[in-house]
Amino acid sequence: MNKIGFIGLGIMGAPMAENLIKAGFAVVVNNRSRPAMERLAAHGAATAITPAEVAAVCDTVITMLPDSPDVEAVVLGEGGVAWAMRPGHLYIDMSTIAAATARKVAATLAEKGVEALDAPVSGGEVGAINATLSIMVGGTEAAFARALPIFRALGQNIIHIGPAGAGQIAKSCNQITCAVTLQGVAEALVLAEKAGVDPAKVRQALLGGLAASRILELHGQRMLDRNYKPGFKVKLHRKDLGIALNTGREFGAPLMTSSLVAELMDALMAMGQAEADHSALAWLGRRLAGQADQ
Amino acid sequence: MNKIGFIGLGIMGAPMAENLIKAGFAVVVNNRSRPAMERLAAHGAATAITPAEVAAVCDTVITMLPDSPDVEAVVLGEGGVAWAMRPGHLYIDMSTIAAATARKVAATLAEKGVEALDAPVSGGEVGAINATLSIMVGGTEAAFARALPIFRALGQNIIHIGPAGAGQIAKSCNQITCAVTLQGVAEALVLAEKAGVDPAKVRQALLGGLAASRILELHGQRMLDRNYKPGFKVKLHRKDLGIALNTGREFGAPLMTSSLVAELMDALMAMGQAEADHSALAWLGRRLAGQADQ
Amino acid sequence: MNKIGFIGLGIMGAPMAENLIKAGFAVVVNNRSRPAMERLAAHGAATAITPAEVAAVCDTVITMLPDSPDVEAVVLGEGGVAWAMRPGHLYIDMSTIAAATARKVAATLAEKGVEALDAPVSGGEVGAINATLSIMVGGTEAAFARALPIFRALGQNIIHIGPAGAGQIAKSCNQITCAVTLQGVAEALVLAEKAGVDPAKVRQALLGGLAASRILELHGQRMLDRNYKPGFKVKLHRKDLGIALNTGREFGAPLMTSSLVAELMDALMAMGQAEADHSALAWLGRRLAGQADQ
Amino acid sequence: MNKIGFIGLGIMGAPMAENLIKAGFAVVVNNRSRPAMERLAAHGAATAITPAEVAAVCDTVITMLPDSPDVEAVVLGEGGVAWAMRPGHLYIDMSTIAAATARKVAATLAEKGVEALDAPVSGGEVGAINATLSIMVGGTEAAFARALPIFRALGQNIIHIGPAGAGQIAKSCNQITCAVTLQGVAEALVLAEKAGVDPAKVRQALLGGLAASRILELHGQRMLDRNYKPGFKVKLHRKDLGIALNTGREFGAPLMTSSLVAELMDALMAMGQAEADHSALAWLGRRLAGQADQ
Repeated sequence: MNKIGFIGLGIMGAPMAENLIKAGFAVVVNNRSRPAMERLAAHGAATAITPAEVAAVCDTVITMLPDSPDVEAVVLGEGGVAWAMRPGHLYIDMSTIAAATARKVAATLAEKGVEALDAPVSGGEVGAINATLSIMVGGTEAAFARALPIFRALGQNIIHIGPAGAGQIAKSCNQITCAVTLQGVAEALVLAEKAGVDPAKVRQALLGGLAASRILELHGQRMLDRNYKPGFKVKLHRKDLGIALNTGREFGAPLMTSSLVAELMDALMAMGQAEADHSALAWLGRRLAGQADQ
Repeated sequence: MNKIGFIGLGIMGAPMAENLIKAGFAVVVNNRSRPAMERLAAHGAATAITPAEVAAVCDTVITMLPDSPDVEAVVLGEGGVAWAMRPGHLYIDMSTIAAATARKVAATLAEKGVEALDAPVSGGEVGAINATLSIMVGGTEAAFARALPIFRALGQNIIHIGPAGAGQIAKSCNQITCAVTLQGVAEALVLAEKAGVDPAKVRQALLGGLAASRILELHGQRMLDRNYKPGFKVKLHRKDLGIALNTGREFGAPLMTSSLVAELMDALMAMGQAEADHSALAWLGRRLAGQADQ
Repeated sequence: MNKIGFIGLGIMGAPMAENLIKAGFAVVVNNRSRPAMERLAAHGAATAITPAEVAAVCDTVITMLPDSPDVEAVVLGEGGVAWAMRPGHLYIDMSTIAAATARKVAATLAEKGVEALDAPVSGGEVGAINATLSIMVGGTEAAFARALPIFRALGQNIIHIGPAGAGQIAKSCNQITCAVTLQGVAEALVLAEKAGVDPAKVRQALLGGLAASRILELHGQRMLDRNYKPGFKVKLHRKDLGIALNTGREFGAPLMTSSLVAELMDALMAMGQAEADHSALAWLGRRLAGQADQ
Repeated sequence: MNKIGFIGLGIMGAPMAENLIKAGFAVVVNNRSRPAMERLAAHGAATAITPAEVAAVCDTVITMLPDSPDVEAVVLGEGGVAWAMRPGHLYIDMSTIAAATARKVAATLAEKGVEALDAPVSGGEVGAINATLSIMVGGTEAAFARALPIFRALGQNIIHIGPAGAGQIAKSCNQITCAVTLQGVAEALVLAEKAGVDPAKVRQALLGGLAASRILELHGQRMLDRNYKPGFKVKLHRKDLGIALNTGREFGAPLMTSSLVAELMDALMAMGQAEADHSALAWLGRRLAGQADQ
């Protein structure tokens, strides 16, 4: 058989499925709406009407879905993937969801002899298109080894973090770090502006020292340019922070500044910026500083 | 004349003065306590008993002092530098102090025909020893050009940010960004630990993506190693945050997460970690997560 | 028929059911474990094995359960209350749960012609025992009027807030206000202590002015006495804050300080104080101030 | 002699001086601008051109000034009160200033045999006019006893907190508690509004339980009415919070939520609400929730 099923052809999933095809894999796709399936079919993918139908003809199934309930529905729901997968098959979820859900899915599939990996990514749309995603993987060593050729067609920085759920934990750590760093950079650049100093020079100076970060480099520039075209949307980062905060609560790890940034993102969304790039924390920062940011 | 006066031979100032001597400058040093002066004398420096005496024999005077009141006292106080400097001379303060104080000092010296630069640094003791400091400079273009040969003997990333005080504003931005990023990294790594995931693998995964930062690299490793030997002490970073928060208040730039990290540093200090490296925010994070961190 | 079913005989539910009996109502009780049922039987209650069995013999059913999933299970689950309730019956949930769940339950029951109220309480175990609870009610005016005689047997400050879910929204507002006020009082009293001033005199002074609150009066005294015997447990207040934060996120109302206090409560729980009274925020405050609080 | 000097005839000071006259004291007033002095002269006060002149003819001198530097200047500066006061005289500062400044003033005056009290007030303009201020007093028992008849002409809740500076510490505790409670109430009421629930009913319900506070009663109503006419101005409360935060830092008492509210007040001021009543925290809360609040 040796086919790969790919369910969820959104902004991330579509280019990822395309990269699998380019790498020579036989791919069967499924998506809630048809047009995305048709675009992939034009690139050589087979299509299937339901998740179960995908699972019936593939020994590896990948999902790339919005949130935990979507994964639960597609995998464990009626007509779901779990129903059709067979012993020895491999399930890989690359969505960003709760670690608890990832562990539950893995446990349910294990009862059927199906191996499961949680393998959330970072790198955004650009990383998905260029196959330069970072992939954080949770699951057994054997399943990881088996999936590695697939991951290599999708990304570059591929790390086996630990057992089931560990990939999602790492992703939560990633989203926390990014969110808090974004806010720190926003506070710094807005301070420079309000104090009458050229924030571009401040960014340049900071990039030469301990304050240097990818976010200062990329999103710092966005903040200077007031370029809030996503990129990674506020509402999606907020969703991921919600998962991270719940994980922190579950495991007893207080997240003092992360929770504050989550509330600032709620403010951004309430103020109409849900679809903006997450660098829009500077947009909010300028508002709070009495500036219009236009 | 063409001598450089250097006042303040602490952990930063002593190696900086030594680097000026190595670069071929004639240096006259002054320090509150004698032993530091004697060590520099052994490297070829002349010594002077008071700041004013330094200023009497040098056409350029550098200060590297703990805080705003120290600079005010040494420059504007009785027997201070301002008293002895003459028209056409150059004063460079490389301490981290309030921008308001930097502007006041510059204005007072300007009345005497003395040019002034505020030129705080980042890069810590290692940067001071290796002459790899970042230097953020506020003052006139002319004064900056005149000081550049001196700065090149001390650091590498030398940026003229803007007029008097602008160097200190940039330094505040730097200290904010570092503090908030440190806390973000600490929250992420403690979350990984408490969730039963190897934080070293999480750090490695995050370094490959958007979460990458010098602080994740350097201080992230320190946090994993529980290596809180400074480095940059909590109490000094807290002092700098105090300056930044006052600057934010003065200019109407709210600093939501920065102020929270300042309070967390107050907690660290109250809990006996004032002399620890600022990566000890992870020490506090582990305590708040119910772990002993030893 | 005219019997009242009461499901959930915990610390709050048991005395509430007892007060209904004392007021002359015929009460049928159900609880997950038997001993609590037997204690109520000794006071004159009938008992039922399942929630559905309660609903089969009562025209009014009250639930007092720990959290949203419990209410969903007991009402909408297999063998649940909804299955057995008949048109014209009245369902009252007095648990503190998500407003979204309250609305969902109300909508489901409405399809069966059953009226529903969400009627969470405040006032704690003492209020439950003394029938002095505050009751915040969501639902129709007619259902509220019908339930009023029951509420009067349980509490004193009974307010019809609005339509289905409104009672839970009010309860979230209550738990936010209490949590933030508690933390404000804790910060003030710990500051007084660390500054070497008698916190009892500070509390007394503050009670005479704008800072006066029930929490300063009651919990302020607890904080001074280091009396953290519950009262209202940290873990329960944290659960309620979790509901409130989700509600804020759902409706786009950022909760800046509430979220911070939620994280502080997570710290308290991680540090072993989950079962302490919520005034233990001062315990954490003293720790963060470097004091042992014993 | 037995005259009372009163320096500082602002919104608070003017009615306080008037109340002393009404109570039968002989009062000599001084103020930076003349019109306020003339108004008091019309009520029977004598006037003096400088603080020192006040001190020369009075055995008790009261100051009511904006901030620490004002008190330092008026008492310790050239032509200041300290210069003219004589052994056995009494100095009472009723301003809200740093405890450190209060202790410094007391120590300096003690060297001249002059007793000093720090006696900040709460209760606002209404309390000043109606002589119902709360007065928190630091200093010796003897000085407190001596000043009591004066305090009784000005307020009602008069408490001797402890030694020099203790009054100011208590005032900081008061301002912290009020600020944090205000923000908690604002978050609750904005949540109710955004969730479609009548915030007036929520306030009414909360007043009946543990969430009850003077601030929920008075400022909660203001928030509902969008009545931000001061009252107590945001910029003044922010000034007092600045003092409290510095005190917390000095004594090692982290102020997690207080510092956050201080930043929110900075946002309010940057957004043009510096002169609004401090209940305008709800104005900011509504903005952050995407509402215009007009």
